[in-house]
Amino acid sequence: VDNFSDRLFEAVEAKRSQVVVGLDPAYDLLPPVLREKHEALDYRNELECAAGAYRDLLFNLLPRVAEHAVAVKPQLAYFEALGAVGYELYEQVVDAALQLGLMVIADAKRGDIGSTAEAYARAHFEVAGADALTVNPWFGTDGLVPFLERTLDGKGVFVLVKTSNPSSKEIQDLHVAGGTPLYMRVAELTAEWGELSRGELGYSAVGAVAGGTHAQQLAELRQALPHTPLLVPGYGAQGAGPEEVAGAFDVEGLGAVVNSSRRILYAYREHDTDWLDAATEEVIAMKRALWSASGRG
Amino acid sequence: VDNFSDRLFEAVEAKRSQVVVGLDPAYDLLPPVLREKHEALDYRNELECAAGAYRDLLFNLLPRVAEHAVAVKPQLAYFEALGAVGYELYEQVVDAALQLGLMVIADAKRGDIGSTAEAYARAHFEVAGADALTVNPWFGTDGLVPFLERTLDGKGVFVLVKTSNPSSKEIQDLHVAGGTPLYMRVAELTAEWGELSRGELGYSAVGAVAGGTHAQQLAELRQALPHTPLLVPGYGAQGAGPEEVAGAFDVEGLGAVVNSSRRILYAYREHDTDWLDAATEEVIAMKRALWSASGRG
Repeated sequence: VDNFSDRLFEAVEAKRSQVVVGLDPAYDLLPPVLREKHEALDYRNELECAAGAYRDLLFNLLPRVAEHAVAVKPQLAYFEALGAVGYELYEQVVDAALQLGLMVIADAKRGDIGSTAEAYARAHFEVAGADALTVNPWFGTDGLVPFLERTLDGKGVFVLVKTSNPSSKEIQDLHVAGGTPLYMRVAELTAEWGELSRGELGYSAVGAVAGGTHAQQLAELRQALPHTPLLVPGYGAQGAGPEEVAGAFDVEGLGAVVNSSRRILYAYREHDTDWLDAATEEVIAMKRALWSASGRG
Repeated sequence: VDNFSDRLFEAVEAKRSQVVVGLDPAYDLLPPVLREKHEALDYRNELECAAGAYRDLLFNLLPRVAEHAVAVKPQLAYFEALGAVGYELYEQVVDAALQLGLMVIADAKRGDIGSTAEAYARAHFEVAGADALTVNPWFGTDGLVPFLERTLDGKGVFVLVKTSNPSSKEIQDLHVAGGTPLYMRVAELTAEWGELSRGELGYSAVGAVAGGTHAQQLAELRQALPHTPLLVPGYGAQGAGPEEVAGAFDVEGLGAVVNSSRRILYAYREHDTDWLDAATEEVIAMKRALWSASGRG
């Protein structure tokens, strides 16, 4: 099985895209046409109605974005919020995306002690079938081992090094021994955790999540972690643009992929076309902007 | 709606028990009689077979422990590891436990930025119906707000302050400004997050998870956090006994509940009786040992 980072960056080259489409289905933000359609159908309850509308949204969207995005990133919280029906939809979405040649990064931000982390790894890598998983570093190495083991077998892990929300500074930016901020210490650990899974393109299968809203920290992380792929959220709705995320790429324009969720899924709010055309146009615009920002344009 | 900590400690008084039964169903550890029974049935696949065996285990166990335990703590990872079928079982187990008068602490260790944390809060508090949820502090205050809002409405939150695994020291014990270990800084934040949800018994609805395997740190946290309920895992299979966790209780024997999972669920391995009697005996023994260790015996 090929190394995850090789698979990821080969897809970047093949598609000339560093775009990850975040799948964050939220009922109140859905195109009104979808809500009206499903509210007129005969579902057993509101959760099943919402799941039907989400399915409609995502199964129409995936084929349209498959050639322009390297990966999709289902956000587990929005599926769990519909209960078991939503969890089943998550599994169906992973299957559909893989069949369309999209890689799948399950954004579950899981973390626990070793024996329990093993169950989470099995849940998302083997049972759901995702290519990669976001994980929380709070437990330290033994809590990450079950995830890291899968990186020797083609899977990928993205450690939450520095998140895009304002309060991330309360813990992640605290200075630890030596005067370094904690997130840089976690970055160093992330590099260590990735040493055994280096691919042919020089990158490890253990990546870092680094919020696009912190442009300077993003560039610092790129410098400090020459072998660590970066997953950059916060593009679009959270305020980061191509300039903010440019520092995440290496000199060859590799090393990072960038996620946008709401700006794509709910692009109908800013466009005059129908929701599916609007979302597709947004992905193409983002693809071009990133390609250029990474020095490839 | 009564405050979560009032509900919890009133249950402690009523049942004379500080026991939380952890629901960590793991197929390889199940009583052989349950595995054999379900492997002989006609399931569509291995995941449904495992879910059937877990359902048998848990739905038999819950009525037997309901009078001896104050709460159950379903560990989401083991349910997710069976996919949507397992997630549905989680929801059924929550319902069954609540109907038996057990409180439910969903051990999901979730954490994300605010809008996504809101979806996790909805998933576990409203859709699944749990009384309390374990949460990861890595994101800081804005990531916790959706969970904290529910503590004003009868729900509880347990923040992962200091976990029971050996590697927890890599991040949680790092010294931050002022020379305090990071977990103590998170403990202070946890106390702040709980200030608005103090109940009549003096405890907040925002608690802390503090591993029973660190006896000294546990006693320090009890001193430092006079209004914070402690959820202590690590009892039994992970090595902590009544002496190790005694420091978690206040002078009245309140302030903490203690979780055991495998030592109860798989007590058949150490007993000569059938698995259900063995598990029940283990809960009763733990109840008495804790009651005594808390100075109530």
